[in-house]
Order: sequence, then structure tokens, then C-alpha cells
Amino acid sequence: MASWQESASRKRESVLAKIPEQWRLSESFCAVPITPNSLSRNVTTDAFLQTLPSAARLSQRELEITSETRISEILKNYESQHWTAEEVITAFCHRAAISHQMTESLSEIRFVEAVNEAKAHDNYLRANNKLIGPLHGIPVSLKDQFRVEGLETAMAYIGWLGNVETNQTESLLTKQIKSLGGIIVAKAKTVSNLQPPGLNPYNRLLSPGGSSGGEGSLLAFRGSVLGVGTDMGGSIRIPSAFNHLFGLKPSHGRISYKDLANSLAGKPVVPSVAGPMSTTLQNLIHFTKAIIESEGCGVDPALINMPWRQSKFDQVRIDAAAGGLCFATFPHDGVVKPHPTISRGVDSAIDAIRQAGHKVIGWDPPSHLEGSRIYAGIVFADVHDVHDAIRLSGEPLMTALEPLFGKDEPRKSMDMKDYYALVLRFRKYQEQYAEYWESTKTLTGTGRPVDGIITPVAAHAAVRHNSFFSYNYTIVYNILDYAAVTVPVTFADKNIDIARPYPEPLNDTDEKNWNAYDPEIYHGAPIGIQIVGRRLEEEKVLALAEVLSGALRLTSS
Amino acid sequence: MASWQESASRKRESVLAKIPEQWRLSESFCAVPITPNSLSRNVTTDAFLQTLPSAARLSQRELEITSETRISEILKNYESQHWTAEEVITAFCHRAAISHQMTESLSEIRFVEAVNEAKAHDNYLRANNKLIGPLHGIPVSLKDQFRVEGLETAMAYIGWLGNVETNQTESLLTKQIKSLGGIIVAKAKTVSNLQPPGLNPYNRLLSPGGSSGGEGSLLAFRGSVLGVGTDMGGSIRIPSAFNHLFGLKPSHGRISYKDLANSLAGKPVVPSVAGPMSTTLQNLIHFTKAIIESEGCGVDPALINMPWRQSKFDQVRIDAAAGGLCFATFPHDGVVKPHPTISRGVDSAIDAIRQAGHKVIGWDPPSHLEGSRIYAGIVFADVHDVHDAIRLSGEPLMTALEPLFGKDEPRKSMDMKDYYALVLRFRKYQEQYAEYWESTKTLTGTGRPVDGIITPVAAHAAVRHNSFFSYNYTIVYNILDYAAVTVPVTFADKNIDIARPYPEPLNDTDEKNWNAYDPEIYHGAPIGIQIVGRRLEEEKVLALAEVLSGALRLTSS
Repeated sequence: MASWQESASRKRESVLAKIPEQWRLSESFCAVPITPNSLSRNVTTDAFLQTLPSAARLSQRELEITSETRISEILKNYESQHWTAEEVITAFCHRAAISHQMTESLSEIRFVEAVNEAKAHDNYLRANNKLIGPLHGIPVSLKDQFRVEGLETAMAYIGWLGNVETNQTESLLTKQIKSLGGIIVAKAKTVSNLQPPGLNPYNRLLSPGGSSGGEGSLLAFRGSVLGVGTDMGGSIRIPSAFNHLFGLKPSHGRISYKDLANSLAGKPVVPSVAGPMSTTLQNLIHFTKAIIESEGCGVDPALINMPWRQSKFDQVRIDAAAGGLCFATFPHDGVVKPHPTISRGVDSAIDAIRQAGHKVIGWDPPSHLEGSRIYAGIVFADVHDVHDAIRLSGEPLMTALEPLFGKDEPRKSMDMKDYYALVLRFRKYQEQYAEYWESTKTLTGTGRPVDGIITPVAAHAAVRHNSFFSYNYTIVYNILDYAAVTVPVTFADKNIDIARPYPEPLNDTDEKNWNAYDPEIYHGAPIGIQIVGRRLEEEKVLALAEVLSGALRLTSS
Repeated sequence: MASWQESASRKRESVLAKIPEQWRLSESFCAVPITPNSLSRNVTTDAFLQTLPSAARLSQRELEITSETRISEILKNYESQHWTAEEVITAFCHRAAISHQMTESLSEIRFVEAVNEAKAHDNYLRANNKLIGPLHGIPVSLKDQFRVEGLETAMAYIGWLGNVETNQTESLLTKQIKSLGGIIVAKAKTVSNLQPPGLNPYNRLLSPGGSSGGEGSLLAFRGSVLGVGTDMGGSIRIPSAFNHLFGLKPSHGRISYKDLANSLAGKPVVPSVAGPMSTTLQNLIHFTKAIIESEGCGVDPALINMPWRQSKFDQVRIDAAAGGLCFATFPHDGVVKPHPTISRGVDSAIDAIRQAGHKVIGWDPPSHLEGSRIYAGIVFADVHDVHDAIRLSGEPLMTALEPLFGKDEPRKSMDMKDYYALVLRFRKYQEQYAEYWESTKTLTGTGRPVDGIITPVAAHAAVRHNSFFSYNYTIVYNILDYAAVTVPVTFADKNIDIARPYPEPLNDTDEKNWNAYDPEIYHGAPIGIQIVGRRLEEEKVLALAEVLSGALRLTSS
């Protein structure tokens, strides 16, 4: 039997082998050390793209095509026959190949199948003079948890490679995307023993975030137009913020999770949710609407039988035009204070919102520390399945995960009696937060409670490897099952975001995080924030994100 | 310290003491032994009501008023000033007093407060010439779990009397009902050590069912117009069917459960839900619509932000008129075969549906035995709180509950790891059932999957005490979180529903149930069935119940 290292290496080779010869980069090209001044530190620049070996370099046509990531515009170009799906898919696959080689973003490649499907779509359009559906010929990437016919779903467990996950049903969302005309080009990876850590395309000294990190770096490099990630503690929002993307973490029950692979899958509450990530907000709206309208609730009992509510979306525009909206924010969550980069990001968002005629008030919610304690108790109540999975190959648990899962043995499971008590505490927390939110009705001046909260996604911009100390800014909204959208704001700038001493840290984690800030290393890292709405307010929070990103464009122009 | 028996007795006395002197019945009147031929066997008859001592007898006016239980008509009588809320509330309180004394239906009485509120409502109407809301002056009763200002909420735990449940927040649904104009007249009881078992008003040899059994017998006796029960395994549907009532068990998230007292409250999945019970279906529709439209989701995070969908209700009428509906049914659930009474009830429903031009096809779903095993595992995974509660007073666990909860010590809790495995099995079951339902699309001839299932609520009509052997007909739909409405069909008739030998019982429970049928004892027992829709199909299933009850009226006339 092969060692886990051998199995992992074989898998990596087999993925690389799916990249056409001409798009392959030499090991020496990829392995150039990254320094603060390397041209390849930020691989999203034209300057870097010009350094690619000529065979692998993107053509003018490919650059033109991949400079457009708005689904609506791509569809227009199909309808007007300016572009074919075949050339669009090929161009994005080309970028995906470079992305993988420069930032280690993919777990599975599907270029050949994707191009064949694109040709079939082109034929369909020519024959019927109409698109297959609202995702016709759109390159889509999925996090590795999604099952796609013909691809493996090992979810980075080396022991699952070629074993456990054969003959599984394709995920319902995969089927929905395909039936709407979407073309799956690849699956994106996360941090694991299977592959080296991913790199942030805007700054390869940094991480793309996780766990939908491969998705984040792939989309930022424009190796795909729309990606679907999953979020149980921030795994859509963190890589979205770290890669200058919009990302939607919906509440549970709007977008199907049926037939995805997962860890901790038997966890009865605080489920992981699937949601879209993209360079443009319009794509999130377009995708979410199309998926919700494809009505999977007949076969997925976890879906709520609720249509896309355009009226909730439009109401935000009406309220914005009428008396203005009211947002809330806080300087920090009481657990970890954000780096200067993130504080500047939040402040820019607030300034933009105010300049657009809206209000921003203070946010003093029930303790986020209590929220994070409830989260930790519930999410790690039983971790046996993770150990079962790694034992299959003998791979070790990743060091960073040891405190959560137990090093050699699973951490002791919670007693059922204690778990019930924790669930009561969890429900009480949800109620207190809801009551607090509702209570802001008297403070907003709009007649409504606060429309949305503007908060950091993490206490830092796209992070240095192994320097992510607190997930509190995201996990609290998983406990609450709130809808949230990340909005890219700006980039870290060593000349503005000066490191300062920190006179009174809140706690050890806070101090550790503060001291990990280094303007030189972080320079160029994307800075994103999140707008949080209440449970099942997907339409509203997408509209709020539109208001904010519109306001940001105005203030930055 | 008082013994639990003394505390219980004191509580019973204090409730009785809230019945005005003139409505009190002597012990000798109430304690007449019930035989198959007693006049007091069926206390809903005019003949019985005439035997009441004159002071306690209902006046002509009271009989006239309480013969009307349709909310819409009561409101009309208020608007036209034919009736005052004061006299309506008084008349129903009068009946509630008799109900309690003849069938042991109440846990708390609120007659004085109710009449005072009614007077205030009358004043409001006179002063403003409009109703307070859609429940203006409607007598409402609540299961004891609901907290109501000024009343105790001991939930039948003797140890909670005067102790635990003071200073709790009033339940959100109580507040909603009050703000819509509803008037709480009493809280209804369940089987416990606190009071003698309740009796079925249609046949006092039988039980009113449970656990919302007091609610069932109170409403059947017209001691209230609308009652709210809770259902975690059939506790709305069973007493509704046993008392010739309509009852709605909604899916989780449509009607608030916030700030109710509960046992097993920390159970993370398969929650108990609250829903209305009444003598008329229109009241269920009226109440559900009014409550959903009062939008509690700002403060109750468990509520789904979804309006009353009149279009889903109307669609059923449109489909019924267009090509007809398609129902499904089975002769039994594979676990326990229904008594001849219930089989006749189901057959009558099917006949009526067919005569009305609709279709009924066979139903062969995923194993209901598997569903009931999953239910038992999940619901009784940890039962500590029940023992904690009974230990407060030293009362014993009721004998019938010993196998579920453990006699002297709590039954051993499940291991978290096994629980996770069970949750996966539970989700798989939900998916299989959904897929099966969806698959009937090819069998119905309507282009839709089956519209609703017609099934027994229990394997027997209103049951003999201690003869309820299987809850399978109801619990499976709690596991599935499906919406269901009970529809009263007819009454057991010893001359039609003949006892027959049973050649091949399915299992021991089946045999025990079959042998417990006695035409003489069961004579006159209400026979109800349930119509089951899918998750969150409350509007649809209420409309289907309307179709069925309309069809039943036609065939019986």
C-alpha cells in the first residue's frame, strides 16, 4: 500500500496532467522565491502576465474575453454572436491553469469536458436561437465538496482518494447549475496535507484564506466567473474578503447543500451553507436568483419553499431613495481589534455610506465572545468522523487543527446532557441578538430597525500564513444563521496603514493579532468588509451591498 | 414541605375555586358512574345539558351564542351589535366551567380577567366603530405550556407549582393573540399526576387523547372557539381527531413557539410546534393567516420570514376546478393496521374525494417503521430534564412513560457519536421521503406530484384509556416536518364497525391494538383522519382540507 505522501503526490500529478501541455509552466518558473519586490508577488497584474513563457501566455482575444466577468455581458456577447462559449470557456480554462500553477488553487480539472459542453451549447444557441438558461456558457468553479460526475470528491482526505466517494450522487446544486447552462471548469481546493498551501494572487506572500480559499484565488485571477463555496464559520466570506471578491453567505435553506461531501455532517445545528463568490456583485444576484427560481425544494427537504423575493430587493432601493438607510457598526467585536488596514476599510465604507445620504449608528450587541463560545461547543461537540477520515491513509491531522479536533485521538465528545444545555444557550443567544436588533427601531430614525451591519470579516486583510488567530467576526453570524455579503473595499497600503504600538490589548489573542501586522508584508492585500442582514434576508443584504459598492465607487472616483 | 399529592390537590382546588359558585356542579353530580348507557356518557348532547342543575344550566341565549363557533360570524355579530363580547365570553366561560367539571379539561382559569377584557373590547368597538383585530372578542384557550400573564405555567410538573415558572416572559403567541383582540379564557391540561385523566366529551368512557387533550375536550364541548395546542408527535392531531375537530400541525417556523415552557427543550432537531384546533376549518385558516401576518420574525429567530401565501391556497381551488386533485393513501402504515372504525373513516374520505372528481392513488413510501425508530432515537436521546422536573416534588414518573424516560433514573443518554450517526440517518430519511413524493409526478395524471396524503391519525378512534399502542401514524410527519390538518369524518358505530378476528397480525403491537377494539365501548367515538402536505405547505394543506370537508358534506347529505 502506498504511503499517504505517495498517494498525495500521485493525485497532484494527475491533476497537473489535465493541464494541456502548452499551458504548463516549468517548475523553475513557478518556484522563483517570492520577495516583497518580486514581480510575481502579485500575479494579477498585466506586468506579471507578460512574463509568462510565450506558449502559456494569454492571447489578446483571451485577455479581452477574461477582462469581462459580468455574466449579463457574457450572455449578451453570446446572443450577439460576438463570442462563442467554446472560446470563452477555453480562455477561462487557460487562466485557471495558470492560477493553479502560480497559486495552487485547484483540486480537480475539467477543461476537456467543459470545452465539449461549450461546443454543444454553441450548437444549441445556433439551432434554437436562444440560450439554454441564465447560466448559459458561464464558467463556474465549485469547492471540492461538490460532487460532479466524472470527478473525484476526496475533500482533501487522502484516504478518500479513489475510495470512499465513488458512485455518489452528483450534488443537487451541480445539477441545477448544469441545467441552467453553467459549465463547470474545475473544483477548487482548500488547505490540507494533499497539496501545498494556496497563495493569494494579489500578494503571494499571503494566504487566500479558507476554507474556500482555492475558489477565492481562482476567481481573483479570473480563472472562473462564478464560484460556489461553503461557509460554516466564514469559509465563503473570508476568502472573498481576502481576494477582493463579493461573496454571499446565505441563511440555511435558500441554496441546496444536498449530496455535498462534508465533515461533521451529522452535526444537528449550525449547518454549513453553500453560496456564490464572484468579482462582481451583479453575478451574485444573478446566480442566487436563478438558483432559487430553479426550485429544488421538491427533492431537497432542507430547502425552504420560498421564491426569490424581488420586492425585498427593490424595497432597499425605495427606502434608500426615500429617507435613506441606516447601518450600524462597531470599532471591534470586544474580542480582537482589527489591524489598521481593516479599520481603514470599515471607515471608508462608513464614509461612503454617509456621503450617499445614509446613516450609520453604533452597534452594541449581545457579547460576541459568548457567541464564539457557543459556536465552539456546538461545532466541535463530536469530531470522530474527521479522525476516521484521516486514519484511512495515516495522514496526520494538520497542526493548526489539533486544539479543535484532538491530536492523535478525537477530542472527547460532549455529553448529551451538556449538549442540550448548550443548545438552550444557543437559542437564547439567537433570541437576544434578534431582540437587540429589533430594539434599534427607536434609534434609526427610519421607522425600521437597523437595515444592515457593517463589520470586518477578519481582524486583518488577506492574512500571513499561520497568523489567523480569531474567527469571531464571521462565526457569530453562523450561529445566528444571518445572511451576509462581503464587499471588497480597497487594498492594504504600507504608506497609509502604519503599524502602531498597542497600549492596552483586550487579551492575548488580541495582542498576538496586533503584533502580527507588518505593513511591508501586507502591502497590496485586499481589504473587504461584510454587510450582515438578518436570517433569510438574502435579497435585502444583496441590495444593501449594491448600495455600499455604489457609494464606494462614488467616493473613490 | 407538602407532599406532591397535597400540592396537587391544593392546585386542583384553587382552579375549581375560580369557577363562579352558580356554575359549580356537586361532586355527586359529576361522579355518577359512566356506563355504556349513561346519559352523561356523551356530554355534548342537548339531552345531557338539560340534566344540569338549574343554576348551572345554560340559558337559551347562551345556547344560541355557543352554537356559533365560526369566528367570522361572531365578528359579524359584534359589528352588527347583535352580541357583545361580554356576553359571548361569559357564555363560553360558562361552558368551559361545565367542560372542566365533566371532563377534567383545564389547568388554569381566567374567567374574571376574560370578561373584563371583553367589556373593554366592547367599549373600544363602541368608541371607535371598528374591531381591535381579526380575533376581536374571540374566546381562545391555550395548552398549559403557553405562558400567560397572571397564570401559572407548571406544565403539569407538581414541583413547578408556585416555583420555577414565576416571572417568566409571556409567550410571544399569547401576546400576538391578545394584540389581535383574542381573549384567553383558560389554559388546557394534559395527562399528569396533577389531575385525574381527562375524559372525551363525546364518550366519557374514552380518552380525549393527548397531549393537547384538555384542549380537545374543551373545544368539542364548545368551552372555547379556538385552542392552540402543540405537536411533537401528534399532540395537536390526536386530540383533534379524537374530539371531532380540525387541527393544524404546521411545519416548524410558521407559528411562534417563543417563550413556551417545554420538556426536552434542548433537543436540537424535531422540535415541537404550536398550531390551532377548532370545530371549524375556517377558524384554522382565519387564525393561521392572522398570526402569520402579525410578523413575529423580528423577535423570534425561529420563525421563517414568509408571509401567508394566499396564492398557494387559491391554487388548490384552481387545480381542483381545472383537472382535479390527486391524493394518495394506504390501507395501513406497515406497523399497525387501523381498527374497522378508522378504515371506514379513511374509505369515506376517499369515496367523497373521488365523487368530487378527484383521484386517489396508492401510497408506498419509505418505511414508516424506520421513521418511527429514528423518531424514538432522536426524541429520547436525553431525558434528564424530565427527571429533574419530577424530582422537585417527588412525584413518580407516570407508568406509561417509564419505557421512554426510565423509571427511577433517567434512561441512559445517547453518545454524541451515535447521535451524529442518527442525525445522518434522519436527514437521509427526509430526503428519501421527499424523493418518493416527488416521484409520484408520473403517476398522478395532474402534472404535479401527489397533492396530499390521506392517512389515519391513529389506529383507532378516540381511544380507551391506556390502549394507545402506536404513535406511528403521527410521529413520522414530525420527523419529516410536514404540514398536516386533521379532518373529522364521522363517529364509531357499533352496528357498522363490527369486530372481526385478525388472521395474520403484522406484529405484537398490531395484534394488541386489534384486540383492544370493542364496538360497544367505542360507540360514538369521533373518527378523524389527517391530510398531510409537504414541509411549509400550510396554505395548501388547509385548502386540501377544505376540499375534503366540502366533499364529505356532499356525500353525507
